[in-house]
Amino acid sequence: MKAPANFIVSPRWLVSVVPKRAPLENYSLVVQSGKISDVLPAPEAEQKYQGLPKYELKDHLLIPGLINMHGHAAMTLLRGYADDLPLMQWLQEEIWPAETRWVDAQFVRDGTSLAISEMLLSGTTTFSDQYFFPGSTAEAAIEAGMRCQIASPVLEFPSNWAKDAKDYLQKGLDLRDEFRPHSLIEIASGPHAPYTVSDNTLSEIAKYSNELQSNIQVHLHESAQEIEDSIKEFGKRPIQRLYDLGLLGPNTQCVHMTQLIADDMDLLEKTNTSVVHCPSSNLKLANGFCPVKELTDRGINVCIGTDGAASNNSLDLLAEIRMASLLAKGHSGDPTILDAVSSLECATINAARALGMEDQLGSLEVGKQADMVAIKLDSPESTPIYNPISQLIYSANSSNFSHSWIQGKLVMEDRKLTNLHLPSITKRARHWAERIRGASND
Amino acid sequence: MKAPANFIVSPRWLVSVVPKRAPLENYSLVVQSGKISDVLPAPEAEQKYQGLPKYELKDHLLIPGLINMHGHAAMTLLRGYADDLPLMQWLQEEIWPAETRWVDAQFVRDGTSLAISEMLLSGTTTFSDQYFFPGSTAEAAIEAGMRCQIASPVLEFPSNWAKDAKDYLQKGLDLRDEFRPHSLIEIASGPHAPYTVSDNTLSEIAKYSNELQSNIQVHLHESAQEIEDSIKEFGKRPIQRLYDLGLLGPNTQCVHMTQLIADDMDLLEKTNTSVVHCPSSNLKLANGFCPVKELTDRGINVCIGTDGAASNNSLDLLAEIRMASLLAKGHSGDPTILDAVSSLECATINAARALGMEDQLGSLEVGKQADMVAIKLDSPESTPIYNPISQLIYSANSSNFSHSWIQGKLVMEDRKLTNLHLPSITKRARHWAERIRGASND
Repeated sequence: MKAPANFIVSPRWLVSVVPKRAPLENYSLVVQSGKISDVLPAPEAEQKYQGLPKYELKDHLLIPGLINMHGHAAMTLLRGYADDLPLMQWLQEEIWPAETRWVDAQFVRDGTSLAISEMLLSGTTTFSDQYFFPGSTAEAAIEAGMRCQIASPVLEFPSNWAKDAKDYLQKGLDLRDEFRPHSLIEIASGPHAPYTVSDNTLSEIAKYSNELQSNIQVHLHESAQEIEDSIKEFGKRPIQRLYDLGLLGPNTQCVHMTQLIADDMDLLEKTNTSVVHCPSSNLKLANGFCPVKELTDRGINVCIGTDGAASNNSLDLLAEIRMASLLAKGHSGDPTILDAVSSLECATINAARALGMEDQLGSLEVGKQADMVAIKLDSPESTPIYNPISQLIYSANSSNFSHSWIQGKLVMEDRKLTNLHLPSITKRARHWAERIRGASND
Repeated sequence: MKAPANFIVSPRWLVSVVPKRAPLENYSLVVQSGKISDVLPAPEAEQKYQGLPKYELKDHLLIPGLINMHGHAAMTLLRGYADDLPLMQWLQEEIWPAETRWVDAQFVRDGTSLAISEMLLSGTTTFSDQYFFPGSTAEAAIEAGMRCQIASPVLEFPSNWAKDAKDYLQKGLDLRDEFRPHSLIEIASGPHAPYTVSDNTLSEIAKYSNELQSNIQVHLHESAQEIEDSIKEFGKRPIQRLYDLGLLGPNTQCVHMTQLIADDMDLLEKTNTSVVHCPSSNLKLANGFCPVKELTDRGINVCIGTDGAASNNSLDLLAEIRMASLLAKGHSGDPTILDAVSSLECATINAARALGMEDQLGSLEVGKQADMVAIKLDSPESTPIYNPISQLIYSANSSNFSHSWIQGKLVMEDRKLTNLHLPSITKRARHWAERIRGASND
């Protein structure tokens, strides 16, 4: 059917996350004008909403759309370009030179469309991004109908996109003006990392963000080296430096956060700052562990990101949630930590909180945006079902996500992306790889 | 087409594992009478084997069939039945009582068929199993055309299948006689764990296995508690006890192997014993870490298992290989460890070595059994391709395995299982869950 504006979804199971952590069976959800207007037992919905178009999803679980809190979408074009290397060698000898040579607006547009396709097909409806030419990222998201926080990058050194910190900052402000009319796009500030941004620039960012009430996303405590270097150069740990410069707070999202000591966690707790955990990236680059148990025990808001495809290499957030859940147990020695529902919360309501959109996203509550995804749970790996949330987190394959709505608009139906032409997108990506591979064989 | 006995497969890429670790592009592989008879450039194959039926797999990577070295297949029927609990509580309060109430020959038959479906669909062609009523496991494998090592369980205490150690041992020997004619089935001995089998019984097993030259698979060093208890009861670590009883050797596969000290690894090295690493299970039950880097640095043979669906909960070996690869890097602090090819070796040639079938399985070499799988690498998560092995291990989704052959027989074609009727299998599994859930609500 042509995607209707008002409709009912009747899945076998529904997990609203808030207010109910337990699955509801045989409930229906009603969408009107892009928002969730009712959640009620299916037979009641049958009576109350006669005539409204209905999606009957009899083997499916409906959940809030997943929110991928950290990535560099366009880097899908460098997926598998350089693997199995240490962080600094990987960055300095492989990734940065490739970026210098290849990254432009078209690269970002094409790479982001590929990333969005992968993310939509695996259950993500919102992603946070930090990359050069962020206007192209925003355009790709708008075309796909996908929700996106863009942390406009800020560094001291030049790139193909901007020439110095001032230029990055100005371009970020311009971006904000340009995409103000687009309800799917939220522009944040993205100071790259403490070791690539000066005190002055960080103070500027703190000031702007405070005035504009905008979010900040920063790579922080990614590796032991970063912390050592900071102590040598600034006499303090990176997070202490950010705190002193006024950068922490409820609008700030700190990405990675390995090697934490109690003082670091005190600062997070005191300022109500969010942590974005990227377990696969941290493992793959052997950067250390984010102490999820200690963080959640302190009530610190933890969400999950895949990181970019050059380091993860997958943007499958469902697999990443599973990874976060298993790793938290193994690392803490406590098998009850990040149970299935808590893990799902990290990628839904906790992420919404980090984005400052807790009143609009992250749960299937009446009045919230209709950002939601359905996954079919009838294949062998999710059979039988004692608890659909357990199957979702611990064994389901993301290739079974079937339907996806953002702002009540259908962006995936029976695994077909409604706004994107996938063969063209993968073809363009292959074309980029041919050029890049060809050049590196020169 | 009707599956032919002799045929050519022409994939875009082929990784033989042995002798070539690097991918071959545009090569063909020829199968005759169930074995690999030739591997050669596609244009030469075109000339040399005119008229032979051909599988053109133009977007695919062909690899040796994956070998899942540890599991309890029938436990799929308890998948998600009890999650997020500590090991002993999980075993004693949930799993063991459920097994006592429900496990019989039919349970094992139905659960194993479900497990086999899941494994075939995710690229596995051989699995090792250890569970009650192993005759039913073997029957399910034969029906599916799947290869299987059955480690016939041995414990001191009674189960629904056998009454005491002597009974378990005798039933294992009978099983060996019963399945001798079946080339897909290999019967091994499966002493459950050091804490459930006595010195006397372990000595018996060592004697039998030595006489019959059969394999032994044992859970070993699964948790810190196990080691502590052994020191208290026997005055030595579990692996030392097995060594003293003559149980270690090249035919022995030790599963889990966490909390290892240098002495433990000395014993493995000295006896040429294999290790079966089950990273997801170890993480989920918070049992500790298997030190893969130290083991491989010593040249100890490491392979990979998913463990059973009650503890993993997924039997997706491709996801498990990725988990093993990432975890090895994170745990050792060395991002170059278990690179993509080495990780693939763990689940192919290393596993074949552990099974004592290195001359028949684990690589695409002329003369070996035609056990092989093809995966389609054209979806967003595996696009673009710089290195197909990197895409396979770090980002591909197992739902893209398309074809699977065992002994040259087609067991999956375009994701259709040729020997199994999937809807009946999942229906039977759901029926079991209804009974089990109904009873636990009593």
